[in-house]
Amino acid sequence: MSEKKEVRIGLIGCGFMGRTHSNAYNRVPNFFPEQEYQPVLKAVCARSEDKVRAFADQWGYESVETDWKKLVSRDDIDAVDICTPNDTHAEIAIAAAQAGKMVLTEKPLARNIEEAKQMVDAVEKAGVKNTVWYNYRRLPAVTLAKQIIDSGKLGKIFHYRANFLQDWTISADLPQGGEGLWRLDAAAAGSGVTGDLLAHCIDTAIWLNGSITDVSAMTETFIKERVHQLTGKMQKVTIDDACIFHCHFKNGSLGLFESTRYARGHKALYTFEINGEHASIRWDLHDLNRLEYFDHSDESKLRGWRSIHVTDGDHPYMDKWWVPGLGIGYEHSFIHQAADFFKSLETGTPCSPTFKEAFETQQICEAVLKSAATKSWCEIESV
Amino acid sequence: MSEKKEVRIGLIGCGFMGRTHSNAYNRVPNFFPEQEYQPVLKAVCARSEDKVRAFADQWGYESVETDWKKLVSRDDIDAVDICTPNDTHAEIAIAAAQAGKMVLTEKPLARNIEEAKQMVDAVEKAGVKNTVWYNYRRLPAVTLAKQIIDSGKLGKIFHYRANFLQDWTISADLPQGGEGLWRLDAAAAGSGVTGDLLAHCIDTAIWLNGSITDVSAMTETFIKERVHQLTGKMQKVTIDDACIFHCHFKNGSLGLFESTRYARGHKALYTFEINGEHASIRWDLHDLNRLEYFDHSDESKLRGWRSIHVTDGDHPYMDKWWVPGLGIGYEHSFIHQAADFFKSLETGTPCSPTFKEAFETQQICEAVLKSAATKSWCEIESV
Amino acid sequence: MSEKKEVRIGLIGCGFMGRTHSNAYNRVPNFFPEQEYQPVLKAVCARSEDKVRAFADQWGYESVETDWKKLVSRDDIDAVDICTPNDTHAEIAIAAAQAGKMVLTEKPLARNIEEAKQMVDAVEKAGVKNTVWYNYRRLPAVTLAKQIIDSGKLGKIFHYRANFLQDWTISADLPQGGEGLWRLDAAAAGSGVTGDLLAHCIDTAIWLNGSITDVSAMTETFIKERVHQLTGKMQKVTIDDACIFHCHFKNGSLGLFESTRYARGHKALYTFEINGEHASIRWDLHDLNRLEYFDHSDESKLRGWRSIHVTDGDHPYMDKWWVPGLGIGYEHSFIHQAADFFKSLETGTPCSPTFKEAFETQQICEAVLKSAATKSWCEIESV
Amino acid sequence: MSEKKEVRIGLIGCGFMGRTHSNAYNRVPNFFPEQEYQPVLKAVCARSEDKVRAFADQWGYESVETDWKKLVSRDDIDAVDICTPNDTHAEIAIAAAQAGKMVLTEKPLARNIEEAKQMVDAVEKAGVKNTVWYNYRRLPAVTLAKQIIDSGKLGKIFHYRANFLQDWTISADLPQGGEGLWRLDAAAAGSGVTGDLLAHCIDTAIWLNGSITDVSAMTETFIKERVHQLTGKMQKVTIDDACIFHCHFKNGSLGLFESTRYARGHKALYTFEINGEHASIRWDLHDLNRLEYFDHSDESKLRGWRSIHVTDGDHPYMDKWWVPGLGIGYEHSFIHQAADFFKSLETGTPCSPTFKEAFETQQICEAVLKSAATKSWCEIESV
Repeated sequence: MSEKKEVRIGLIGCGFMGRTHSNAYNRVPNFFPEQEYQPVLKAVCARSEDKVRAFADQWGYESVETDWKKLVSRDDIDAVDICTPNDTHAEIAIAAAQAGKMVLTEKPLARNIEEAKQMVDAVEKAGVKNTVWYNYRRLPAVTLAKQIIDSGKLGKIFHYRANFLQDWTISADLPQGGEGLWRLDAAAAGSGVTGDLLAHCIDTAIWLNGSITDVSAMTETFIKERVHQLTGKMQKVTIDDACIFHCHFKNGSLGLFESTRYARGHKALYTFEINGEHASIRWDLHDLNRLEYFDHSDESKLRGWRSIHVTDGDHPYMDKWWVPGLGIGYEHSFIHQAADFFKSLETGTPCSPTFKEAFETQQICEAVLKSAATKSWCEIESV
Repeated sequence: MSEKKEVRIGLIGCGFMGRTHSNAYNRVPNFFPEQEYQPVLKAVCARSEDKVRAFADQWGYESVETDWKKLVSRDDIDAVDICTPNDTHAEIAIAAAQAGKMVLTEKPLARNIEEAKQMVDAVEKAGVKNTVWYNYRRLPAVTLAKQIIDSGKLGKIFHYRANFLQDWTISADLPQGGEGLWRLDAAAAGSGVTGDLLAHCIDTAIWLNGSITDVSAMTETFIKERVHQLTGKMQKVTIDDACIFHCHFKNGSLGLFESTRYARGHKALYTFEINGEHASIRWDLHDLNRLEYFDHSDESKLRGWRSIHVTDGDHPYMDKWWVPGLGIGYEHSFIHQAADFFKSLETGTPCSPTFKEAFETQQICEAVLKSAATKSWCEIESV
Repeated sequence: MSEKKEVRIGLIGCGFMGRTHSNAYNRVPNFFPEQEYQPVLKAVCARSEDKVRAFADQWGYESVETDWKKLVSRDDIDAVDICTPNDTHAEIAIAAAQAGKMVLTEKPLARNIEEAKQMVDAVEKAGVKNTVWYNYRRLPAVTLAKQIIDSGKLGKIFHYRANFLQDWTISADLPQGGEGLWRLDAAAAGSGVTGDLLAHCIDTAIWLNGSITDVSAMTETFIKERVHQLTGKMQKVTIDDACIFHCHFKNGSLGLFESTRYARGHKALYTFEINGEHASIRWDLHDLNRLEYFDHSDESKLRGWRSIHVTDGDHPYMDKWWVPGLGIGYEHSFIHQAADFFKSLETGTPCSPTFKEAFETQQICEAVLKSAATKSWCEIESV
Repeated sequence: MSEKKEVRIGLIGCGFMGRTHSNAYNRVPNFFPEQEYQPVLKAVCARSEDKVRAFADQWGYESVETDWKKLVSRDDIDAVDICTPNDTHAEIAIAAAQAGKMVLTEKPLARNIEEAKQMVDAVEKAGVKNTVWYNYRRLPAVTLAKQIIDSGKLGKIFHYRANFLQDWTISADLPQGGEGLWRLDAAAAGSGVTGDLLAHCIDTAIWLNGSITDVSAMTETFIKERVHQLTGKMQKVTIDDACIFHCHFKNGSLGLFESTRYARGHKALYTFEINGEHASIRWDLHDLNRLEYFDHSDESKLRGWRSIHVTDGDHPYMDKWWVPGLGIGYEHSFIHQAADFFKSLETGTPCSPTFKEAFETQQICEAVLKSAATKSWCEIESV
């Protein structure tokens, strides 16, 4: 493939997200071979040299680093991909941008709006390509929802509702902080379910239904103290275990969002539904190859929610995969986002959501947390 | 309602089916008050005087009998409704026809084809109104299926499949025969699941998809001996516990039917599916207010099985009940059949399935049992 | 049944609810014949003499009235059942109580908290039996949910969510007010979806999960003006088309409620879910014979939401009906409530929800509407 | 990974199956890095040099061949993987075995039993590792079904039913034979849905439920003539478009199988259900991460089919992938089979199904076709 243009990737972080991104880079040449730009796995960085070497072997990275600053400064890296905990996103992204690298970062963009603002400023000032891995947009059923909405089939929108329900932190014996559990420590994560889960719901929502203007929220921390892995001591839990908010969208529709890690029986139940004048759509991550669609223009006696198995060649992204009826999985959302990122280099368009677009999600998260803290409605400033 | 014409009912049998029919007669005046003919609960008959009196009190019958022959000969009875075990259908129905009464009988028509033939002859010779209670036709979702098929939306039919799965006889400790368990005794029932359950599937099938021409079947009796309630002794089980057959329909489609009382986890899972060139339909008794419908003429990317909640005013029978979204139950199938029977007196048309129409189902059951016994294909003679 | 005690019913209102209650009274003797107290349909009242006579004929009422005051004052009436629009509940109920009658009223108790308070005072002062027809409690699946919760299987509760979604008022051409449409006129109804739909959700919620302490709500009226049927003029719409609120329960769990008549594709989608430490439950009115249940104590690899078809003899109320697998419908919730009401006469216990218990739902509705109007959290005073 | 042992793969065929296998080989090092044996993509072979070079580039094969005999004779190939149409399986597999290579072949093993027998003999005589890609066994939900059955939870088995329904050949305009359509030409495929689809159902069935002893079948070719792509002429269609059979298993249970390409609305609806004395299981390829399980030992009132989302770390294969709730796809079945194949080199055990095991499926397919042709029951000889 000598005519292909190489994009030399430097990945930072070898955890769960490091794996999903590495898999994505490995799959793009197999499933999107026609694209002009293709990734080369140049380097991966993590603090533990043993771990990072094993990771490089497993995923095919050419070299390793244990100091992200060295990776960011290497001449043979075109794009820096940030898969580290949220508290490091800003510093790394800003340094990468200043070094003239393309910057990809895991969501959420940052821990808070101040960090996020600096990140947006940095990539815009440097003029470098940037994107945030809000991966669920690229599941075929979700992209199909976007196509249906953009086609105008729903008409005026009345309602948008989404939730992201998990149950993995119900046990009081689960510690917080440190390896594998930094998401339960606000110092590292910024917030709890709001930044981790609702951020996904919000990103999809504003993509599908436009801006949110104001929010009214409630948060709860059910278990007040947990042992902290780094200190070994029982410490106050500083994250939100659950967050619920309702809101107005700019288009006049009402929004309703809920996220929790205390919904017994749900593992990663991200669902959304959008009700329009003429049609409605709903989706569920536990059955990710399916989109449900109700069209009021169907003959009256024969109207019903259609269960669309989004696995045909004319469904988004599915011409790259198998044959009708044969589903894909979670990881494919990352493969599609990676492919779209490289495609955007070819077309010269931004790869949505950019840092700037993801900033809006950050604003909403911040307003949600503020609303919950102040028990009042909070408005979202327009960017 | 003095202008209404009364149809004086004499019901024989106070068991499960006696209850469903009595309820149906009680509901017709409430929900079909506009019909010209209305039932009057004149008499009910059962061998135990205590039981039949209690039953009459409960359901509002004016009088009781303990000898069905007396009931059949009463001048103040217009219609005899037979809810007794299968081994009595023929004798009672023939006597009732000879007495000039309208005759309604629970399904299956009879234990076997000889009895059935005599019954058809009797009602035809007497020229009396007659019908068999294959009640599932009158569930709104099933009637809607009929309307869709009749509209031609399915095009050429390729496949019809149905099953009726139960699990209530798995325990070897369950006795056979006698009170409440005559369905497990071939002497009383004629056959096992074939006459009890598959007969329903076959009745619906030939109504929806036309005649069956030949069958290839297999039956099984999993538990070979059970205590008989009437003798108190361990006796050979003579019914079929399970029956599977495939067949050809006259229209060229293939049929597949299965019934069993050994399908752990299923209570009364009657389902059918019909696949046509342009569209398909499926239905499930455990979710009886719903019909699933797939229409290939829907826009390619948006095709999916539609889940139709058959509870709107323009759905069959549903203008008689509540408002959209509010479902009805099993018993309503009997209410609808009763209403249709009385309506048929007004219109002068037969109330399907008549004895003659139900005879075809009996023929198919007989062919199925013969095919299983002989391990060969059996043809259905045309009536 | 001469040994039975008769409860002479006087029903006021011949609309949709008049039909559901009349059906319930007719079914009780058939399906609950063993109960000591049985209804007698003594009189029905509506303003139109023609209509009320036809209704009496259809449902078997012995006499008619066109003035509710006359009905309430009749000596041969034991219980007054109010099925008229909400704006008449208070006046009739208070008069009935003062006349020493038992009082049953359709939900919501009243248009507002002031009326509701007077009604509670009236029945308590008069010491008469009273109940409000929050019928959904008596669907077997919902009662089973109550039994499971009361058994302690869920443990500490974290979340309760419910919604009631409809789509029948989306068209701007639909008028408001008057015959069949009084629910769209706040003068008659008190409020829109809050009193009509959310009241159901709240009644079930507090029954299952205890008191609500404070709420934060949002309402919307999507179509601002509609022709009023009584005036023929375009008038401001005064009801809430949609209402969303989140709240705290006294037991520390978070609540989330939504109702709308603008959710395209949903007819009467009342659903609720409750998440506890050890188990969760969910239910859906569109599939009313089913309860979903997740039990974390199931073996790890085999855990999953159980789809319980609530049609067995050991399920609540189901020993009165058919056999396993054969579902019942919407109307049965009223039959069960009627039977429970008559049973409560036998046992001398209140028939829940009493006016006093339903007052709590009224308080919450009022707080919800106030919260939405003031854009602030509102507390519920304890009764 | 210098300590790893390399298995040098030579793949023959660049079609749909060539892609699924190539993807599997590429993923094993990423997701099963701990395994001792790892694939090396040494060579790929196809008749068109252009195509095979592009394929090699896309998937990372080191070299290409256009003559499979050359590939089979190369010293630097350890394992030959056959992804060509069925009519070539026997010749290639036998040659590969004779050359001492490990042999992997796509299913079905061969076009007919004679070819299959020779293939079994060849690999057994040569003593080479061999396996057939009946991939569905390795979907986590299907493997979980196997584990549940092996644990004895189902008890005595009564019923096994499976179907594989598609709708892609309904149009009479679809040609047969040649590129992409060899499955519709019996000369290339051996049979129609029997070898293509039912073979999958049979492989799973005998793995889960043991041997089948006799079958009674029916086949149909709905469209009798189609244009053949290779001749350009309208020719007789020689495959079975649909096949239905019932059978006995050695363990006394009854089997029911159906496959068709004329079931409008179904893309690749492979489903199976197994009913035992104590528990039942069902699965559906359209929702492949889920297994439904009914356990009669659950508390009576709370029994229901459990919907198990098979995505936890303790579910088969799932510790290799993501976190609970995040599903995988169709392609993963091949990755798992590849990993299991390499693992079997480490453990020295056969990789099921071996050619010999797959021969039983071939026997059943042959008996099914013979039964349909002769309209009689056919027995399966024990191997």
